[in-house]
Amino acid sequence: MPQILATAASIEALDNTIIEQARARQQVLTKPAGSLGRLEEIAIQIAGITRQITPVIEQKVVIVMAGDHGVTAEGVSAYPSAVTAQMVHNFLRGGAAINALARQVGARVVIVDIGVATELHAPNLIERKIAYGTANMANGPAMTQEQMLEAISAGIDIMEAQVTQGVEMVATGEMGIGNTTAASAITAALLQLPVERVTGRGTGLNDEQLTHKIHVIERALTVNTPDGHNALDVLMKVGGLEIAGLVGVILAAGIHRIPVVIDGFIAGAAALVAAELSPHLSAYLLAGHTSVEQGHSHILTRLGLRPLLNLELRLGEGTGAALAMGIIEGALRTHREMLTFAEAGVSERADEA
Amino acid sequence: MPQILATAASIEALDNTIIEQARARQQVLTKPAGSLGRLEEIAIQIAGITRQITPVIEQKVVIVMAGDHGVTAEGVSAYPSAVTAQMVHNFLRGGAAINALARQVGARVVIVDIGVATELHAPNLIERKIAYGTANMANGPAMTQEQMLEAISAGIDIMEAQVTQGVEMVATGEMGIGNTTAASAITAALLQLPVERVTGRGTGLNDEQLTHKIHVIERALTVNTPDGHNALDVLMKVGGLEIAGLVGVILAAGIHRIPVVIDGFIAGAAALVAAELSPHLSAYLLAGHTSVEQGHSHILTRLGLRPLLNLELRLGEGTGAALAMGIIEGALRTHREMLTFAEAGVSERADEA
Repeated sequence: MPQILATAASIEALDNTIIEQARARQQVLTKPAGSLGRLEEIAIQIAGITRQITPVIEQKVVIVMAGDHGVTAEGVSAYPSAVTAQMVHNFLRGGAAINALARQVGARVVIVDIGVATELHAPNLIERKIAYGTANMANGPAMTQEQMLEAISAGIDIMEAQVTQGVEMVATGEMGIGNTTAASAITAALLQLPVERVTGRGTGLNDEQLTHKIHVIERALTVNTPDGHNALDVLMKVGGLEIAGLVGVILAAGIHRIPVVIDGFIAGAAALVAAELSPHLSAYLLAGHTSVEQGHSHILTRLGLRPLLNLELRLGEGTGAALAMGIIEGALRTHREMLTFAEAGVSERADEA
Repeated sequence: MPQILATAASIEALDNTIIEQARARQQVLTKPAGSLGRLEEIAIQIAGITRQITPVIEQKVVIVMAGDHGVTAEGVSAYPSAVTAQMVHNFLRGGAAINALARQVGARVVIVDIGVATELHAPNLIERKIAYGTANMANGPAMTQEQMLEAISAGIDIMEAQVTQGVEMVATGEMGIGNTTAASAITAALLQLPVERVTGRGTGLNDEQLTHKIHVIERALTVNTPDGHNALDVLMKVGGLEIAGLVGVILAAGIHRIPVVIDGFIAGAAALVAAELSPHLSAYLLAGHTSVEQGHSHILTRLGLRPLLNLELRLGEGTGAALAMGIIEGALRTHREMLTFAEAGVSERADEA
């Protein structure tokens, strides 16, 4: 435990000198000041993260953590648990949405079995299975403390291996039937909000099923009494192995000054946990999109993040984050490749000339 | 005149059979139905436009029409008119925002001088200058009818040349100091809205300058009395040469069943004019983004379009449309490249199995 906390505490604040230099550059590029809106903000933030005035990001990865959830025994998902493993095979074949979108933005996809309930082996699968799914949180803790710490460590290892290979930006993805239930439980516990305000329809529940899901989460919180001021206690009791793995990925990215594009609600819950462990972490995050899941907006508010896209996605896998990577690269390209007024011989504002 | 109207009238409705086939495909791809949100809508729309169930779009172009505005004599812009020509040089050198963003999404940029007030010659410039800027609309019509028709025809010619070269998607861009004034005047006249509701700060006016701009537009509408039920009358009297050129580009794209990504407010005003001439045109349009200019949302409402991005851009040039092209390609890739439940061996919903 202290090792993880020390790791998190070593994440540094962004570099304000570089941020100011990047901001100054935006002021003299051939456009009215501010007219590139959020693209300008993104470029400045990433300058501060990477400590480069005009950052170049070429190597990008989407890390998809897969894990199963014991709580599916309570009937909280429209899909059977077996779909987690089936979708891992689909990812490995390149046939899922995240594969198509990663190809679109030129990112590699890394698939991790961190807790799928099925035996899985494949040459291009990263095998770090901590358990065959979590325990049913409606009856007791989803994980032991040891399992949770192992999952976070696995995430750190996997991200560090990517950094060694030259990765410069990471998107967080996940697969796990039942994991909106875990994300809602984490969000309710850490933000101290009523369960019904942070619980949505997941892959497509009807009204009755949604009410049932809310009751199951309420029971899990009553049974486990997670400490809302202790993110790791919450993660262990009502989280998931893939969420813990993503916490590790996000922390390692912060340590190595790599921008992290957070996908939707599940990845957001991981970011929320990670940000509770490090006061500087949220500055390394970009929110890829607004999920349809209602708990997501509460997480973004707490993290102080504004999503880049709102395309009404509710798939997960990292899809919203991958799409956002294209926008982020556009922001960096304009910042880096545009000429200044002086270079281009373009007049500045009449009232400033 | 009758030629343009006949051209516009020849644009056909989308193919509903293909649309239904594309929609059926979305239902069996390996994801919960509807979970790709607007990406699904886009793929289905483009199937209907292109008459391909799984459309492939490789060749993309951003057509940037540049023209000057006599109304700048009234002091409606923060920048001097000379900036239009200076920015054309910047586009040709590849140093502007649109160049960087087009590179990002793999689109070519085509620059057209359709009415810049300066003499311009360059090997990679399409020279179709109709006039050295429009006349000052505050004193009389911005264009003669002949100029307007020539500008629309130039746009049609340029788009048809692109189609011949194999272009499969087009984004509309523009450059013209003073052209938010023309776009606001067109919007007020065609939507019959008060000028102050459709007029914004352009490249960065202060409150006093904005009030002056509104008065100038009101004067232009009083002096010219454009017929709000006659889009070409409005375009001629209070429009711009680059806006007329884009009307031609958009109409030609509709005729050739090419999806058109509309940029912000100026391109939106061109789309509004084009859509008044053809009952089927708006189905060929995708709104790239929400401009900060307040008139834009009124145009989108009339056209029944929902913008894909909201990144607080207010630059024009086609920047928002170029960024949106990446999202659109992502939509087509998921639609085309994802495996179906049957192909991937993934279980469908428990309650539908």
